[in-house]
Amino acid sequence: MTIPMYGLVEAGGTKFVLGIASGKDDVHETVRIPTTTPDETIGAMVDWFSARGPLAAVGVASFGPIDLDPASARYGYITETPKPHWSGTDLVGPLKVGLKCPVALDTDVNAAALAEYLWGVAQGCRTSLYFTIGTGIGGGAVIEGKTLRGLSHPEMGHIRLTRHPNDLEFAGTCPFHGDCLEGLASGPAIIARWGKSLSDLPADHEAHDIIAHYLAQLVVSMQAVFEPGRISLGGGVMGTAGLIDRVHNMAARLGAGYFKSCAEDIVTLPGLGDRSGLLGALALAMGAES
Amino acid sequence: MTIPMYGLVEAGGTKFVLGIASGKDDVHETVRIPTTTPDETIGAMVDWFSARGPLAAVGVASFGPIDLDPASARYGYITETPKPHWSGTDLVGPLKVGLKCPVALDTDVNAAALAEYLWGVAQGCRTSLYFTIGTGIGGGAVIEGKTLRGLSHPEMGHIRLTRHPNDLEFAGTCPFHGDCLEGLASGPAIIARWGKSLSDLPADHEAHDIIAHYLAQLVVSMQAVFEPGRISLGGGVMGTAGLIDRVHNMAARLGAGYFKSCAEDIVTLPGLGDRSGLLGALALAMGAES
Repeated sequence: MTIPMYGLVEAGGTKFVLGIASGKDDVHETVRIPTTTPDETIGAMVDWFSARGPLAAVGVASFGPIDLDPASARYGYITETPKPHWSGTDLVGPLKVGLKCPVALDTDVNAAALAEYLWGVAQGCRTSLYFTIGTGIGGGAVIEGKTLRGLSHPEMGHIRLTRHPNDLEFAGTCPFHGDCLEGLASGPAIIARWGKSLSDLPADHEAHDIIAHYLAQLVVSMQAVFEPGRISLGGGVMGTAGLIDRVHNMAARLGAGYFKSCAEDIVTLPGLGDRSGLLGALALAMGAES
Repeated sequence: MTIPMYGLVEAGGTKFVLGIASGKDDVHETVRIPTTTPDETIGAMVDWFSARGPLAAVGVASFGPIDLDPASARYGYITETPKPHWSGTDLVGPLKVGLKCPVALDTDVNAAALAEYLWGVAQGCRTSLYFTIGTGIGGGAVIEGKTLRGLSHPEMGHIRLTRHPNDLEFAGTCPFHGDCLEGLASGPAIIARWGKSLSDLPADHEAHDIIAHYLAQLVVSMQAVFEPGRISLGGGVMGTAGLIDRVHNMAARLGAGYFKSCAEDIVTLPGLGDRSGLLGALALAMGAES
């Protein structure tokens, strides 16, 4: 019996991380290639996999927006992105043609949510969510074992929030919506207001409470919408010491005991840490077979 | 061949509407009984169904909160409700015992969302939402044919919003959260500010834009979270002339072209009108068989 080998792709705006694995505890070769032009990056990706023998399937956990509609002529394409050269890039086609195996695609955050559901902190949850709070803010969901999609994939970073009373002047950094969640609480939004990342600001700086206030509203609104069994918060901003505790406290206060779950019980850092992206790609690849 | 007959229950805080039907176009007998005490109301409900011969199943579309966890000892109970006498009432048990048939339970809004998916404006949608904007605000979702649940059912009326600049003084009417969506845009919240229902205020009154602003934020946040194919907005407040157009316009402005869908395309009044509750109960009953 041959153990099936999967190709993993974590496609990001600055780098593509590629891997080969037979299972979550056997990711046995990885490489990083810079995200330059589509031709160069996708060419290097196909070459790298081609040199590594037949694959049972490839999973691609990608930055967005991407076209996930199987009925669309542009299924598997990156659609309109501010990243130069990448709008309208076919991500799935070259892999299918070059490697002659099934290719599964989803957003990086949906894939991470799936990995957390299969192997991380969301195991056994009927409904669970994963967010990355970093350069951007994105969210994915797994509902009864499947990632959430509608007409397209979610863009959960763009929900609306109540402004913190000490943060009424800042216009927000989202080029589309100004003061949506991403416009208020992403890494660039923090630097735009205070000149440093949150982890570089002193622990008594008001920025900590302001950002926790926005993330707590995210938690409470997600409790209202999903009553999820788990919300994992990952990404660079969540590396700030004490932030998750502030979010717990603030979300408990905002929720006021109304929801079935306590924020402290359901909100955690990701169980898979920075492996959630690549393991998300593995989860997609393993699902692509069936 | 005998045509299966279903019992329908739309359980509300002021009345229970009961019905008998073999299908969506054959709801052939209905009755309204006032919601008094649980003993009286539930007794009358069981008696009414008992007098109407054997039923294939009963579907209950109920006000909440209700316990929907099949593993819970209190599955099928109304949990903590401000409605006097009704906290801790077993809604499903007496029907099962009295009628000896399967009983399916869900929230009124999840049931309505399911009815709209099966027979109304959300047919063919991978993901769709239904909201009622009335005495309270509630939302339900159908994802790939199934209603959304997590640890419990959603309570979507309690999401957070940005305050309208002309509405900063009002504290909101939600006893838990103050100025969540329900606290700002429900019927009682409108009356608390302006002394009249929205439909009784002149068309040029600023209340129209303020309420549309909040409902538009709901739409945009739901586009961010779900990218749904349909959002239907029902309930008494939506009966206000011109409100849906204001919501369309405001949501398009707030979304700023970012989402896959246009608010004008996906946001509609419910296709089943005030029948969505009872047809929701039918949808639940038909699902209970399998």
